[in-house]
Amino acid sequence: MAVNLSEPGKLLPVAGVRLGTTNAGIKQTERDDLALLELAPGSRCAAVFTRNAFCAAPVALARKHLANAAPRYLLINSGNANAGTGQAGYDDAVACCAGVAQTANTAPESVLPFSTGVIGMRLPVAKITAAVPRALEQADTDNWAAAARAIMTTDTLAKAVSRQIRIDGATITVTGMAKGSGMIRPDMATMLAFIATDAALSQAVLQDCLNQAVAQSFNRITVDGDTSTNDACVLIASGQSDLAEIDAPDSPARLAFQNALDEVCRELAQAIIRDGEGATKFISIQVQGGQTEEECLQVAYTVAHSPLVKTAFFASDANWGRILAAVGRAGLSDLVLEDVRIELADRLQGNRVCIVENGGSAPQYTEQQGSAIMAASEIDIRIQLGRGEIQQEVWTCDLSHDYVRINAEYRT
Amino acid sequence: MAVNLSEPGKLLPVAGVRLGTTNAGIKQTERDDLALLELAPGSRCAAVFTRNAFCAAPVALARKHLANAAPRYLLINSGNANAGTGQAGYDDAVACCAGVAQTANTAPESVLPFSTGVIGMRLPVAKITAAVPRALEQADTDNWAAAARAIMTTDTLAKAVSRQIRIDGATITVTGMAKGSGMIRPDMATMLAFIATDAALSQAVLQDCLNQAVAQSFNRITVDGDTSTNDACVLIASGQSDLAEIDAPDSPARLAFQNALDEVCRELAQAIIRDGEGATKFISIQVQGGQTEEECLQVAYTVAHSPLVKTAFFASDANWGRILAAVGRAGLSDLVLEDVRIELADRLQGNRVCIVENGGSAPQYTEQQGSAIMAASEIDIRIQLGRGEIQQEVWTCDLSHDYVRINAEYRT
Repeated sequence: MAVNLSEPGKLLPVAGVRLGTTNAGIKQTERDDLALLELAPGSRCAAVFTRNAFCAAPVALARKHLANAAPRYLLINSGNANAGTGQAGYDDAVACCAGVAQTANTAPESVLPFSTGVIGMRLPVAKITAAVPRALEQADTDNWAAAARAIMTTDTLAKAVSRQIRIDGATITVTGMAKGSGMIRPDMATMLAFIATDAALSQAVLQDCLNQAVAQSFNRITVDGDTSTNDACVLIASGQSDLAEIDAPDSPARLAFQNALDEVCRELAQAIIRDGEGATKFISIQVQGGQTEEECLQVAYTVAHSPLVKTAFFASDANWGRILAAVGRAGLSDLVLEDVRIELADRLQGNRVCIVENGGSAPQYTEQQGSAIMAASEIDIRIQLGRGEIQQEVWTCDLSHDYVRINAEYRT
Repeated sequence: MAVNLSEPGKLLPVAGVRLGTTNAGIKQTERDDLALLELAPGSRCAAVFTRNAFCAAPVALARKHLANAAPRYLLINSGNANAGTGQAGYDDAVACCAGVAQTANTAPESVLPFSTGVIGMRLPVAKITAAVPRALEQADTDNWAAAARAIMTTDTLAKAVSRQIRIDGATITVTGMAKGSGMIRPDMATMLAFIATDAALSQAVLQDCLNQAVAQSFNRITVDGDTSTNDACVLIASGQSDLAEIDAPDSPARLAFQNALDEVCRELAQAIIRDGEGATKFISIQVQGGQTEEECLQVAYTVAHSPLVKTAFFASDANWGRILAAVGRAGLSDLVLEDVRIELADRLQGNRVCIVENGGSAPQYTEQQGSAIMAASEIDIRIQLGRGEIQQEVWTCDLSHDYVRINAEYRT
């Protein structure tokens, strides 16, 4: 049951980007488990990948292909992550790209592979290459919703969003999709996310736009603190709009585009949390008054990863002592307890309550006030450190019975 | 349901240490919730405390009293942690010590206070001071088992152990008790643990013995990664045996005593894990072949804190990909994947299986072998990093439905 999340609204096609999906039989269900994206010639891609040392075979190969050629096809399968599969898994990814290249009459280096699902199983290469022609055949610019569904694993809802903006008289579209629900603690990257625009951007500005958007969206979420081996986020620019190429890092056009991209990434990242495994609450942790971005994030993630804090939110129990204890063990040196202030707020209704000040329980606080806010489906935890001007925000969800059930049963 | 843990066996009295317990009505149950330890004149105490910045009032006061006077009484209550209570909580701890001092006709500075239980509630001082005379009245050297029960919170079993050794013809006894089940990730300290010996040790050697024992026992366990605000471990030396004072840091007597103390601490620390909230499995994570102690512990704790690894163990699912992913995100630079080798072993039966080698699934591995070991109640994860000579071991438990239930319901 996702938290205040519904199926994607209207998704706008991006000129130059066609999507096809099919059931390759990887998952042994009726659902599509393969998506193929075809990019018009002249498209550019920027990407960020997981920093997990055990990165999956498709991540290693996609990195290599990106460095050597302009991408024309993105091949994405769900149901199998092709991770922890060693040289054999790498060879499997190569074979899948070769299959696409043969069908589409292109160079293998112009195909980027992506996989998500169970770790450590060999990829069914023959099933995938056999399915590629079917996916290509029905590829269309209008297929974003189907593609968003095809890349899902434990997700309960597809995640996709569109924005349209006007820049210098031209209409620019940004449409993106993402998947992810567990093993979510992206490290300089994200779960699988694919975002496309018809704007034209220089390669340098394109990568810079993506880095900036990811830093404040996919890199600010956590479900369970586990960084996936397969995280990848790709930004595609087909360049098919009427707008001139954006190549100045701080032009008004760049800023307008960046804003739209930031919004798309933030909404997709938050959608992943809303659909976090077993999530019943959406929680924003806002750390303010820090000396550095790093220490704000240190506090925010310590709170976000505390199983005790997460179960208290699941129980709608305003057990502020657990939040306090997590702040206290976050490793900040010379933290002055008397300067720390912690507030809870209902994100949707706006009402809030101070739970900690002067190193202890706020005197005016009542359990009744705390419980009222903890019963909300979206909650802000605002932690004021009182030692600087920096602030950072991280999004997470609660830890419920269903998280344990889903992950205990995942492979059975 | 604790993992392979039963009520304490025969507990040996320590000459010079009398223990009394009573029901002070803090918890609103029939069970004793107060323990008072009386130490004979001339006893010495060493202690280590939590490094949580929000340390509780009793921790702050116990530290101060220890620095100023020789301890004669240890006052321990369960049911209320007196943490996050600010100046008022500190004053409450002072009042409790004053109560003991008055009853026992001693200086308030010779009383050390300890509290464990819910964070953020005011301590019922009047109930505690009223109960102190009852506890003192029935104090006896034979009361270790009752005291171990009185300090329990979510523990399902009391934890206490004794060792007796001969040094230089004298018989030396070491008896200790501990409590702890959740919010367990001691940081340079531990849950509440009290260990006493009738040996005489110089203050410097006593503290050194404790530090060394704690480092390899209470500081190597984790249930949920949450460091308590109230952790404390006290080692009492009454000096009432026939053995001469141990004051040389590396004398044979010191080493013999250290061995016995290490065993007691390790058994108590492991008992905390066996009785971890919701635990169904006892898991030892052994990281070998590291370059430094720090990096071995970094890998071990990343695995130990991964909710995905912990739920896989709960499900007896040999999902080795989750272990691999956790090792990969532990932040070791220049980790050579091909050198990493991971084995699972049944601690009690001894059979083992290699699950990862050469950066991927071990070729000879079968799911059947993995499942057979994962079904055991005690499991070793042996991670060979292949880049050095250092090894470290950490103990943890699985993450079960009951962990969520216990912590969602804790205050209700």
